[in-house]
Amino acid sequence: MPRKLRMGMIGGGLGSFIGDVHRKAAGLDGMIDLVCGAFSSTTEKSKASGKALFLPEDRCYGNYEEMILKESKLTKDIRMDFVAVVTPNHMHFKPTKMALEHGFHVVCDKPVTLTLEEAEELYLVIKKSGKLFALTHNYSGYPMVKQARAMVMNGDLGNIRKVQVQYIQGWLATNKEHEGHKQAKWRVDPKRSGIGGGLGDIGTHAENLISYVTGLEIEELAADLTTFGKGRILDDDGHLLLRLENGAKGIMSYSQIALGEENNFAIRVYGDKGSIVWKQENPNRLVAKWLNEPNKIYTPLGHDLYPEAIEACRIPKGHPEGYIEAFANIYKNFALHFMAILDGNNIVKANYPSIEEGLKGMRFIYASVESNKNNAKWTKINK
Amino acid sequence: MPRKLRMGMIGGGLGSFIGDVHRKAAGLDGMIDLVCGAFSSTTEKSKASGKALFLPEDRCYGNYEEMILKESKLTKDIRMDFVAVVTPNHMHFKPTKMALEHGFHVVCDKPVTLTLEEAEELYLVIKKSGKLFALTHNYSGYPMVKQARAMVMNGDLGNIRKVQVQYIQGWLATNKEHEGHKQAKWRVDPKRSGIGGGLGDIGTHAENLISYVTGLEIEELAADLTTFGKGRILDDDGHLLLRLENGAKGIMSYSQIALGEENNFAIRVYGDKGSIVWKQENPNRLVAKWLNEPNKIYTPLGHDLYPEAIEACRIPKGHPEGYIEAFANIYKNFALHFMAILDGNNIVKANYPSIEEGLKGMRFIYASVESNKNNAKWTKINK
Amino acid sequence: MPRKLRMGMIGGGLGSFIGDVHRKAAGLDGMIDLVCGAFSSTTEKSKASGKALFLPEDRCYGNYEEMILKESKLTKDIRMDFVAVVTPNHMHFKPTKMALEHGFHVVCDKPVTLTLEEAEELYLVIKKSGKLFALTHNYSGYPMVKQARAMVMNGDLGNIRKVQVQYIQGWLATNKEHEGHKQAKWRVDPKRSGIGGGLGDIGTHAENLISYVTGLEIEELAADLTTFGKGRILDDDGHLLLRLENGAKGIMSYSQIALGEENNFAIRVYGDKGSIVWKQENPNRLVAKWLNEPNKIYTPLGHDLYPEAIEACRIPKGHPEGYIEAFANIYKNFALHFMAILDGNNIVKANYPSIEEGLKGMRFIYASVESNKNNAKWTKINK
Amino acid sequence: MPRKLRMGMIGGGLGSFIGDVHRKAAGLDGMIDLVCGAFSSTTEKSKASGKALFLPEDRCYGNYEEMILKESKLTKDIRMDFVAVVTPNHMHFKPTKMALEHGFHVVCDKPVTLTLEEAEELYLVIKKSGKLFALTHNYSGYPMVKQARAMVMNGDLGNIRKVQVQYIQGWLATNKEHEGHKQAKWRVDPKRSGIGGGLGDIGTHAENLISYVTGLEIEELAADLTTFGKGRILDDDGHLLLRLENGAKGIMSYSQIALGEENNFAIRVYGDKGSIVWKQENPNRLVAKWLNEPNKIYTPLGHDLYPEAIEACRIPKGHPEGYIEAFANIYKNFALHFMAILDGNNIVKANYPSIEEGLKGMRFIYASVESNKNNAKWTKINK
Repeated sequence: MPRKLRMGMIGGGLGSFIGDVHRKAAGLDGMIDLVCGAFSSTTEKSKASGKALFLPEDRCYGNYEEMILKESKLTKDIRMDFVAVVTPNHMHFKPTKMALEHGFHVVCDKPVTLTLEEAEELYLVIKKSGKLFALTHNYSGYPMVKQARAMVMNGDLGNIRKVQVQYIQGWLATNKEHEGHKQAKWRVDPKRSGIGGGLGDIGTHAENLISYVTGLEIEELAADLTTFGKGRILDDDGHLLLRLENGAKGIMSYSQIALGEENNFAIRVYGDKGSIVWKQENPNRLVAKWLNEPNKIYTPLGHDLYPEAIEACRIPKGHPEGYIEAFANIYKNFALHFMAILDGNNIVKANYPSIEEGLKGMRFIYASVESNKNNAKWTKINK
Repeated sequence: MPRKLRMGMIGGGLGSFIGDVHRKAAGLDGMIDLVCGAFSSTTEKSKASGKALFLPEDRCYGNYEEMILKESKLTKDIRMDFVAVVTPNHMHFKPTKMALEHGFHVVCDKPVTLTLEEAEELYLVIKKSGKLFALTHNYSGYPMVKQARAMVMNGDLGNIRKVQVQYIQGWLATNKEHEGHKQAKWRVDPKRSGIGGGLGDIGTHAENLISYVTGLEIEELAADLTTFGKGRILDDDGHLLLRLENGAKGIMSYSQIALGEENNFAIRVYGDKGSIVWKQENPNRLVAKWLNEPNKIYTPLGHDLYPEAIEACRIPKGHPEGYIEAFANIYKNFALHFMAILDGNNIVKANYPSIEEGLKGMRFIYASVESNKNNAKWTKINK
Repeated sequence: MPRKLRMGMIGGGLGSFIGDVHRKAAGLDGMIDLVCGAFSSTTEKSKASGKALFLPEDRCYGNYEEMILKESKLTKDIRMDFVAVVTPNHMHFKPTKMALEHGFHVVCDKPVTLTLEEAEELYLVIKKSGKLFALTHNYSGYPMVKQARAMVMNGDLGNIRKVQVQYIQGWLATNKEHEGHKQAKWRVDPKRSGIGGGLGDIGTHAENLISYVTGLEIEELAADLTTFGKGRILDDDGHLLLRLENGAKGIMSYSQIALGEENNFAIRVYGDKGSIVWKQENPNRLVAKWLNEPNKIYTPLGHDLYPEAIEACRIPKGHPEGYIEAFANIYKNFALHFMAILDGNNIVKANYPSIEEGLKGMRFIYASVESNKNNAKWTKINK
Repeated sequence: MPRKLRMGMIGGGLGSFIGDVHRKAAGLDGMIDLVCGAFSSTTEKSKASGKALFLPEDRCYGNYEEMILKESKLTKDIRMDFVAVVTPNHMHFKPTKMALEHGFHVVCDKPVTLTLEEAEELYLVIKKSGKLFALTHNYSGYPMVKQARAMVMNGDLGNIRKVQVQYIQGWLATNKEHEGHKQAKWRVDPKRSGIGGGLGDIGTHAENLISYVTGLEIEELAADLTTFGKGRILDDDGHLLLRLENGAKGIMSYSQIALGEENNFAIRVYGDKGSIVWKQENPNRLVAKWLNEPNKIYTPLGHDLYPEAIEACRIPKGHPEGYIEAFANIYKNFALHFMAILDGNNIVKANYPSIEEGLKGMRFIYASVESNKNNAKWTKINK
């Protein structure tokens, strides 16, 4: 008998941006129920969040250890199936590891861990556990991003020559971290964010998008990172030269201090047969450019889409789907995979980012920081 | 103790566009659970839909009468709180009436009924029942539409002079109703759609948006309607001249045969101090034009928003919200109103379209059809 | 021996918007020299304008009669070849007639005359004179407008069903005519503008664009015109229902009081095979929509253009051409026609608007004003 | 007595893209007449071009030496005032030098010379000659670019932190140089283009735009250049990291192989008070972003413009000006300067790019090529 999956959440207390996004994304397709949580650092706060989310008090825990231990003792028809880890970066590794080792699957926010070492250890933990692990590189969930990838994979663009990515935001153009802005505070704090500031927050999304759309890995990079915000330690802006497999060249600009920019994430991929342009702020539109034809505009459930794009759409054309829907595609594919396993179905495969993408992201951060320390010297990405 | 609301659905079986939208919209904010449904015309199909939605078999009913009667007999802590009516137009009135008379609140799709007479009767039924009634004129749920309305209401645009609305689609440019397209079939069928084809489907949205944004009623109209699709009876295209209160003039173009258009719904409102332009296909952007300043672009959670717009946003700026989120704002406001009542709170008021908007829509349809019969003669909207 | 053509100008003194545009448009392609002018109402002002334009004093005349008479007496190798009439509407007919009757060709601004009677008389004068007459409906000069027309003419869009035109400006949103704004003054004055205000100024452009792009004539119209500006006599805003040949329907909105709009002129044409959208403010882009293909973006000298569009382009793709270039295409085609005649070449034909378009424009104005007097009653366009 | 200026042209025979642009740009404002030319490499071809341009045969010369010598012997009221040099790069230095040394002013296309050495020598020649020298970095002629610069110069954006420039074209995505495409041929030929391919053609425009808009110089750069076209010697694509004065950082992407791109040149400048975005393909629009206000859209002759922008506009708002008009602003300012000198007026100053900009461009090319040879090592720009 098919049933909805039961999710427990670690982090994501009231007021958290990303916790709320995870809950909405998980719930959108009616396949997942939130059943418990360790939302905050104290039992009291956690229960307050749980109450606002209509959870019973006894499923609101004071910390993740308590949650994992107590939930594992509940009967199979009640206890959570998987954990969503939506804490700051320094709190990804331990809860994920513990959850996996207690038999729970995990959906985790990115970057996957605080350090590269943690990510490498987590890789082993996951493989050993045999549990599912999804990493929420949510921008790969947009239908038009999936169409772009499918066009590259099917050779429509020919050999990829040039990739241009920008991910520019302005929310840290001023020192919001001194004004009680909770998210700003931990994002600029190396103890909670790791060695990359903007790099970890948005640079990794940019790296993932390049890799997802083109299927090409970055072989080496030269990074010129900057810290514009007074008193900050971590990068809040970066410019990178990239060299990809097969001779393709790339360039990346990311920023948290690009004043006035909201969430301006865009990619351009140029091949020797065709090119594509996609922009996150108007995501339901993919422009493809061709050698001997006018430019074409692809839209969700519009003409000439690949199945990978179609299956990521929910509603008729012209009815915009947004950030939550794209995020929900990670959860939906995770849930479909999970349900197939419950069902004994081996055909459905993982169609969501996982630890491999997490490792790539961490290696990208480390290589960028190293390159920057060496005055933007070319630095290989270790594999 | 706060709790999630329990929704029963009438219509919306598997494959239904709008049923799925209602479910996602109702579920998005984690305040409403779908607990039962009479999804289809047979018990078997209804159960199949229910199963796919993870509902227990005994809460999947063969028709709405059965659902309403059986649910009313369940205990208070289990039975549905309200009904969502998502059937074709001819099946709005009876289920809604019966649900209200059995003590259930109702959320209903638009246009509110098949005929004006039904709408007038429903008005009385609702008032008598003392139950809540929400009509899903979902486009009023977009944050930037709420900002536009607030700007008008606060006098920022001055006296409104001119309103220009287009709602153009191309999905009926060919005779899809002959190709087994279920939605096309009932949309072109007067028995199920009523006397307005495109008028009822999208014209009423356009009428509602004018009224919502400007706060002005249409006093009279001249309608030139056309049926382009071969063999069709109802209008699939229309052009209207509008005269609004206070001397404002309006113009409306709607179409289902505007080949290649997806869901191109846009409004321009011109006052003597300022103007606004909003377009549904890129909804997170409101352009305002001013007498002595550059044009400005307003965005969700961006600068200079009114509280009405802010409270309709969910996630940080630059992360696009779409059609489902706007739709969900109807459900969210309905749920907040409902929960406040459960809570004994009289301060929260209805902040969603209701039977008054439904009546206006029906009167708009009737006046348009009458005008068109009289060769686009000016026709008053009865009140 | 080929030579540049010599132009005399009537009107267009210093500070005139449209006179300057005509001069730049005439000069752009290096085929026409300005050699003389009766720029203003006094000899002194006319000479001042001429001086600023580097003209010799003796070719600057105090009025058009003097210019036409004196120029006709100059030797053939010196005297002007044609006259450009760029005065307000009430000063089109007489100078044009006199010039034609003295053997000069004419380029005239639109609307062609002050009254329909004048236009009808001018038609006869032109035919009798055997001289060339070009009317500067400049928007038909844009390459992408020519592409749109060619697509319709070649049947790419199939049967035309629906045409939607807006030409909205905001420059008369306030009473600029009281602030010494010269152009505003005559535009709101029926003695100088004729019976149409916005109608004559921009409505005729809209009418011409419909006719040019679709090749269809307006058979009847219903016009709801408004005068928003205090103390004005003429329309400054209008909404029209249109019925075209072959059962096509149209709708038009024009305005001079759409506050904040600059020169927002746009057309949408929907056929049963394809559709096009063009917007004057970003004119180097034509979007075509298709039944079974993604939307395509056509650009000057880009892919899949018809020869009519290509020959209207000057510079490589991506280098925007604008309003002056489109205007210059009228002059260029006029000059090519003229030079061919000088050359004894009968193959080159008139490829610019002429008196026929002028007559249509006047009939459109008259029918609109009549319809409006009769409360937007359907009114046939006399032919 | 004011008079029109007389221009002689070197290069720009029939079929030349840039020669035609220079002629149209020079002629647009009615201040300059083309009076002679050495358009091509043979007297015959030169005369053919001259004939098509309506020039007398005796002013069409077989080479620039002949033109300069013969024109210098004509009387002052007839002979050319200045020379426009519109040949490929290797033919800039000698004609310019000779013209200056014979007393003619010069307008020259960019990059200023074939080699840095030539540019340095030319600098001395110009200073010694006392003649005017304008370099056609035409993109600085757009009104909205001038507005952007004025906003920076007036401190509206605060301290500049980040500059992002792309100049991407696709015209060399295939080997057009093998298909008889004249411009492609010389652009890929180091003997005629110099050591930079895309660098000289468009990279220098990008460098100039950064410098013009921000007023900041590039101090050092790291360049990763690529040659994608088979058999090519010169770069056809490049990615650069930039470090500017005052700690600002920059990034540049240019390309001739970005398939499907037309002339996609765009700049983003981020300060600590505001930011701007400008895009060449839709040039009549400047978006500014602010810390505490909605984004604003600036347009030619719209609100809140600086005088520098206003004086670069010709026609009312909403009537698009394009590439030729921007180019013409270089010629117009050159002509105004020249006429002022003729007039004995010392107040009008050079308001156009000159040899200083030319030198910067050459140093940028040389530094980029050197950096690229050293695997994108940071390389100072020599001054």
